[in-house]
Amino acid sequence: MKISSRQTELVVGLNIPAEIGMELSEVATPALIIELDAFEHNVATLRERLDVAGVRLRAHSKTHKSVDIARYQIDHGGACGICCQKVSEAEVMVAGGITDVMVSNQVVDPKKVARLAQLASQARILVCVDNLRNVDDLSAAAMSKQANIECLVEIDCGAARCGVQSSEAALEIAQKIDSCSGLRFAGIQAYQGSAQHIRDYAERGREIDAAAGMAADTLTLLNRNGLDCAIVAGAGTGSYPFEAASGIYNEMQCGSYIFMDADYQRVLDAQGEQISEFVNSLFIWTSIMSKTRQDDAICDAGLKVMSVDSGLPVVYGREDIEYVGCSDEHGVITDPGNQLKLNDRLKLVPGHCDPTCNLHDWYVGIRNDKVECLWPVSARGMAF
Amino acid sequence: MKISSRQTELVVGLNIPAEIGMELSEVATPALIIELDAFEHNVATLRERLDVAGVRLRAHSKTHKSVDIARYQIDHGGACGICCQKVSEAEVMVAGGITDVMVSNQVVDPKKVARLAQLASQARILVCVDNLRNVDDLSAAAMSKQANIECLVEIDCGAARCGVQSSEAALEIAQKIDSCSGLRFAGIQAYQGSAQHIRDYAERGREIDAAAGMAADTLTLLNRNGLDCAIVAGAGTGSYPFEAASGIYNEMQCGSYIFMDADYQRVLDAQGEQISEFVNSLFIWTSIMSKTRQDDAICDAGLKVMSVDSGLPVVYGREDIEYVGCSDEHGVITDPGNQLKLNDRLKLVPGHCDPTCNLHDWYVGIRNDKVECLWPVSARGMAF
Repeated sequence: MKISSRQTELVVGLNIPAEIGMELSEVATPALIIELDAFEHNVATLRERLDVAGVRLRAHSKTHKSVDIARYQIDHGGACGICCQKVSEAEVMVAGGITDVMVSNQVVDPKKVARLAQLASQARILVCVDNLRNVDDLSAAAMSKQANIECLVEIDCGAARCGVQSSEAALEIAQKIDSCSGLRFAGIQAYQGSAQHIRDYAERGREIDAAAGMAADTLTLLNRNGLDCAIVAGAGTGSYPFEAASGIYNEMQCGSYIFMDADYQRVLDAQGEQISEFVNSLFIWTSIMSKTRQDDAICDAGLKVMSVDSGLPVVYGREDIEYVGCSDEHGVITDPGNQLKLNDRLKLVPGHCDPTCNLHDWYVGIRNDKVECLWPVSARGMAF
Repeated sequence: MKISSRQTELVVGLNIPAEIGMELSEVATPALIIELDAFEHNVATLRERLDVAGVRLRAHSKTHKSVDIARYQIDHGGACGICCQKVSEAEVMVAGGITDVMVSNQVVDPKKVARLAQLASQARILVCVDNLRNVDDLSAAAMSKQANIECLVEIDCGAARCGVQSSEAALEIAQKIDSCSGLRFAGIQAYQGSAQHIRDYAERGREIDAAAGMAADTLTLLNRNGLDCAIVAGAGTGSYPFEAASGIYNEMQCGSYIFMDADYQRVLDAQGEQISEFVNSLFIWTSIMSKTRQDDAICDAGLKVMSVDSGLPVVYGREDIEYVGCSDEHGVITDPGNQLKLNDRLKLVPGHCDPTCNLHDWYVGIRNDKVECLWPVSARGMAF
């Protein structure tokens, strides 16, 4: 009936699947591995694309929840800062030395507002707002910490999630932010989340055109009322070419591009092909643990090491076998040639990278089949 | 590029959603809460049912991954010991003082076999086997630690997952176990996992009858060859009344009964009603964080705090509103009466309890709307 710190220490201590220098074949299964060459390729590619387009990257750390990766994106990937979705994630990032953090989400609970203001006394903190009353709360909290919080008004530009429903509502909130001590009006958040995974390129483009149109209307109204938007933010891995070319957006919030996943492999580019500028760098390393039937085998990776909300994982580099069933700790792999053997290793491409990473405590970084680094999933489980 | 212990300490330190004595309304959202009266009712109910049936309970800790709950099941719930699915889970349980642990799964990787043998020098350890060569490996590892590992032969009794495919194959492995130093033949594992969530009671019963028939055939063959089965193990929350009454099984491995979930609410009893002997005790505590449309609201609980593999969560105690959409950090809740307000709290019944618990670091135990205890999810993330 009490908190056992011994137990939590134990958890952290036992749960490391690899050692630096180890061969990949020796890494405990199941584990979350990053192929570093592919990861670095993805980081460099987006940097290049956004440099050419002349827009900033504020990389989304909700994908990886790792201070080490956030730092890599800033140091090598051209990111001006990062996004988080939760105050507790932002706390981990700031404690890890990241100094420019946007919570690209609403923070309305009084205790979370207080924690956000505390953070703003340590780092540049931005947050999204879609409620007038929330502005008062943020202002009071910021003032009590003698801090400044930069606020973006979020508009609902088609995803029907958070965000105000009209330019007029955005103006009202922006004016209020602009008038409040402790706050600075920083611009608008116009993320079209439901467009990211639309398979067809042209259809995806139409959704973003519509979103950019709403953002432009809001910008015009704000400008006409003397409010300057330093930041017009949005975009994800699936849609960023459209936002980057829109002339409206200036800050991209891509996250998944560093890893990709099985569902993003079903999103098509302008040629109707699988997106190829980013490659799979994230895998579940799994092994065969039971083989009692000719035509299938059981691996040790199930629901507790990957999220199947966007479909089952894909066996990487193998056309001959397929992951067809998932339970808590097991996966069923077809084996039509009856070739799989106990302890055979496979790489799985998870269906959806973000919630998969959130299940693990460590990234095992691999180069040339050797463990090069171990990165803690620093903000894993940080949900509030 | 190195392990940062500071970061992991940080994670553990920041991630506690409540304090003992706090009002439920003050608990940070989203959080995993247990209504303790309901939990204790469930534990007492299964104990009573199995006492009457004259079979043992070996409670499955894969559901909760908590040393505190395992201990409660042993001290108050009549459990003779616990099950785990992974060696790393068993390590946490043994380190936490649990002395009788079955890994109800195959352990075939050489390093994991060595870790299992190490555990067997500290506690009673049982494991399942479905491969002849694995017996040699377990024996060698046990001998090297001067330990004894108790082995059950797993039979595939209908789920087409792990387990041998015939009584003859079971006999061959059992005889080998019986002949090997460091091992003890303990019986058979005959868990019919795919029957647990069959909606119709009679159909569920037919699947378990078939499984019990296969177990009986194997028992007969083993007995005829002089091999005694101290343990005939299987059963889960959905099917245990059938195994308990079969006259074949003597050890039940129920897990979900302590918590229940939205999917188990769709499993029917003999009267065609929702199972009522066990009640929902596990919830996601969530709050409304955005409300910009009349007919819906956005809550702060998404894919990172619950698994949707078995369907979306259900809003507890509310017929008027419905959780209809889930993204990484958000949920969409219908609000036909336009009654939800920012910071309103709701309880969600997760679709599937086991992989949901594995996302959290803490259980917040609630009684009479006050926080009574905080239990670490001690083996969270222990996947290998």
